[in-house]
Amino acid sequence: MTEPRTLKELAEYLDGVVRGDETLLVNGLAPLEAAGPDKVTFLANPKYAVKVSTTGAGAVLMAPGSESYGRNVIEVANPYLAFAKLLTLFYVQKPAPLGIMPGASIGTDVSVGADITVHPGAVIGSGVTLGDRCIVHPGAVIYAGVTIGSETVVHANAVIRERCRIGKRCVIQPGAVIGSDGFGYAPDGRGYYPIPQIGIVVLEDDVEIGANTCIDRAALETTHIRRGTKLDNLVQVAHNCQIGEDCMIVSQVGISGSTKIGNHVTLAGQVGVAGHLAIGDNVMVGAQSGIAGSLPANAGYSGTPAIPHKEWLKSMAVIPRLPEFRKSITALEKRIAELESQLVQK
Amino acid sequence: MTEPRTLKELAEYLDGVVRGDETLLVNGLAPLEAAGPDKVTFLANPKYAVKVSTTGAGAVLMAPGSESYGRNVIEVANPYLAFAKLLTLFYVQKPAPLGIMPGASIGTDVSVGADITVHPGAVIGSGVTLGDRCIVHPGAVIYAGVTIGSETVVHANAVIRERCRIGKRCVIQPGAVIGSDGFGYAPDGRGYYPIPQIGIVVLEDDVEIGANTCIDRAALETTHIRRGTKLDNLVQVAHNCQIGEDCMIVSQVGISGSTKIGNHVTLAGQVGVAGHLAIGDNVMVGAQSGIAGSLPANAGYSGTPAIPHKEWLKSMAVIPRLPEFRKSITALEKRIAELESQLVQK
Amino acid sequence: MTEPRTLKELAEYLDGVVRGDETLLVNGLAPLEAAGPDKVTFLANPKYAVKVSTTGAGAVLMAPGSESYGRNVIEVANPYLAFAKLLTLFYVQKPAPLGIMPGASIGTDVSVGADITVHPGAVIGSGVTLGDRCIVHPGAVIYAGVTIGSETVVHANAVIRERCRIGKRCVIQPGAVIGSDGFGYAPDGRGYYPIPQIGIVVLEDDVEIGANTCIDRAALETTHIRRGTKLDNLVQVAHNCQIGEDCMIVSQVGISGSTKIGNHVTLAGQVGVAGHLAIGDNVMVGAQSGIAGSLPANAGYSGTPAIPHKEWLKSMAVIPRLPEFRKSITALEKRIAELESQLVQK
Repeated sequence: MTEPRTLKELAEYLDGVVRGDETLLVNGLAPLEAAGPDKVTFLANPKYAVKVSTTGAGAVLMAPGSESYGRNVIEVANPYLAFAKLLTLFYVQKPAPLGIMPGASIGTDVSVGADITVHPGAVIGSGVTLGDRCIVHPGAVIYAGVTIGSETVVHANAVIRERCRIGKRCVIQPGAVIGSDGFGYAPDGRGYYPIPQIGIVVLEDDVEIGANTCIDRAALETTHIRRGTKLDNLVQVAHNCQIGEDCMIVSQVGISGSTKIGNHVTLAGQVGVAGHLAIGDNVMVGAQSGIAGSLPANAGYSGTPAIPHKEWLKSMAVIPRLPEFRKSITALEKRIAELESQLVQK
Repeated sequence: MTEPRTLKELAEYLDGVVRGDETLLVNGLAPLEAAGPDKVTFLANPKYAVKVSTTGAGAVLMAPGSESYGRNVIEVANPYLAFAKLLTLFYVQKPAPLGIMPGASIGTDVSVGADITVHPGAVIGSGVTLGDRCIVHPGAVIYAGVTIGSETVVHANAVIRERCRIGKRCVIQPGAVIGSDGFGYAPDGRGYYPIPQIGIVVLEDDVEIGANTCIDRAALETTHIRRGTKLDNLVQVAHNCQIGEDCMIVSQVGISGSTKIGNHVTLAGQVGVAGHLAIGDNVMVGAQSGIAGSLPANAGYSGTPAIPHKEWLKSMAVIPRLPEFRKSITALEKRIAELESQLVQK
Repeated sequence: MTEPRTLKELAEYLDGVVRGDETLLVNGLAPLEAAGPDKVTFLANPKYAVKVSTTGAGAVLMAPGSESYGRNVIEVANPYLAFAKLLTLFYVQKPAPLGIMPGASIGTDVSVGADITVHPGAVIGSGVTLGDRCIVHPGAVIYAGVTIGSETVVHANAVIRERCRIGKRCVIQPGAVIGSDGFGYAPDGRGYYPIPQIGIVVLEDDVEIGANTCIDRAALETTHIRRGTKLDNLVQVAHNCQIGEDCMIVSQVGISGSTKIGNHVTLAGQVGVAGHLAIGDNVMVGAQSGIAGSLPANAGYSGTPAIPHKEWLKSMAVIPRLPEFRKSITALEKRIAELESQLVQK
């Protein structure tokens, strides 16, 4: 069970203002329809405003000026963000640090910060640095020479290969692979000679990496993912890529080698991006698009080749009518031939 | 070597009928062309019926009423299913249970059923329940509070995160991740605030999960996969999805958050499904399709946007002719302009 | 630091010829723009030839007959390949063999060659054979009966299931799964009966497998990948596939069951290939293509359905103009109707 808190406490935590009974005790969160009197709910989308009138919630997080229908309200600038923060407050418990547990394997010259946990079955290579309050879950493997910033969590069976550098407060979901060899081969007349991939991967602070996502180490220098960027599950980032700050890379996206992506870019699910391209800041790319050329900043694109998203929607709407087009063109050709023969006869 | 059995024994096992020598001993299975006199083969597709006349097999599994060409026959309603069942009978040996082996790591308050095996390097968190005859292979990691039904097999290096619930007779292939955090973030004006994903994943009985497939835990409640559904390798199921009974989700499919899929649905390889959709019972979706809207039950769809599969095939057949269309339209425009000018002249 | 070597030594190693000071000592490699006097650089693409005139490198790898601008030169037939070989020479150190390390788990009847390393947390099943100089990284799991040829490297948390056979000098990146069950089920009137997958996977010599890539074992015989073929990350190879020699299978490709791929085939990123097809030698398939039929040898293809790559580019160029087509056809229909009515009137 979560510990009850007053609306006053919550408003202070959220930098918000209570309208109503600020002494009311609540113990958790629930959706508008399902919330009881000991729960807080939220109104983010004005389209659901009327549901506030019938909710059983003890209090509603809403933007200043929204109609309260007589409910207790905590006014906040961003109700959805406030909801997320209260989820953290009520439901997320930092586990007590357990140190290096029996069954973990620790190499030589490992440097560990305060209050860390290394679970059984985790393997920490020689020369690794683990920051304060890091958690390494069972079966995670950290190769030699890796550095990991404070408060980063590495989930079970994730792998971070040699010398990669991970920032603070990163989260690596289970099975993710950071620093696998880039896919680089030199044709030698018969087959392929593997080009040593001697670079590394750098993840800056607050980067999150999804389950079974793969980020290849650079051939010579760094594959680099900047502060705050989030990668979903099963994403592929090839060697030498640069990804900017606060990007959202959705599941099963593939980014080919040496491509450079700006800040605040969103790539929707299953997008493929060719190599050696530049994608500008604030670009949004629609699901399953195939990006074969660089994309200017501040626009949305879809399709193969990628075109502005709205134009793509129009083109896609025509696809089901293509067989008709063929018939229409054939019919037009007949009618014109008929007209032409009539004119000749005259 | 497998143990020989008489055709009579096999017919009883399969609920079939022998025509021919029911005392004949056979010791395994082989294809029609390759089977020798100590092997059983099968005829499932009538197009190969003539091969029965030349097979060297000791016996043929076939539907009642098929031409036997004088061979020994075991008549069964579904010869392909019977073949699969005999594969199990002849070649699948349940390994003897080995208990909790040295090198496995077991948390506190773990409850284990009869005849289980936990291999070296597996890690079982606190409060986990393992049903009778479960097998947990090396390196698999079961976080705290997970429950696993009887006879479920968790292969090497698979991960099941905290509190998820797995049914009976499930098979989790190597590297699969069940219960990773859903990809949920609230924009906070600068970057993204991670929304705690406090829900779980539920797999019902007889669900099978492919290698390196990822199923995210729900934000608040459950990501739910119902009885008998099979997921292939490298599939992505996002948070809050509901998948019905007896679905086939083929490799590299991605299903976005909160989508609800009915029973007996087939999604072919690399299909992408957007979030918050409803896919009806018995729907079949062709490979690589991009599903952006809900789909009514009992039909086949393909393409982007998805249209009935047969219409899509017609549209795709036109794609290679698009450059011609352009020429045809330009030619027509010229011919009409010519006609128009002639008519004006007259 | 890497050990310095003279240009003469390097030329001998590369089977090349020095023009200039063959006693010059260098200690590594760098790009044309960044190389200093103690570094070797290379000119592979004639378009950068002019950069040789300004490079600060101690020596340049180039093809015979290229303009040297007075630099020290090592003439080699294939400068890019020579660069890759020098990367290996300067930067790749074979780690000293460490034997079976504490914390590794070894089954019964395991046969190991000379100078192997099995890291902590690796699990080697019963009856496994490991060739000379193999390296098995932490958390890798080798099921019973697997054979692995000499000098093969299995990275952390990779899994090789029972009885699979791996050649010499293979590299298995972290998290890859070799020998998971094929996705085979027989409908039983209600749901799906799992068909036992009793075959194996065979990787021949010099095969490399990317991170989190999955290769399913055959239903009855072998899924087979021939000498020298390289698979990138997150690739899916379904049961019974045959892939020839020296193929390049790029990230996130999916190949359905029983498809047979020739030698020297390249499948670009996110390609999907249907089952039971034959892809000829030297075929190249463009990114994201969907291959639904067999493809003749020695050609490039793209699209869905796949057509010759150049034709596909032309068709794709038309896609953004489809809405125009519709308008053009409607306009033509009006103009013809007008002409027809004029002719009737006359």
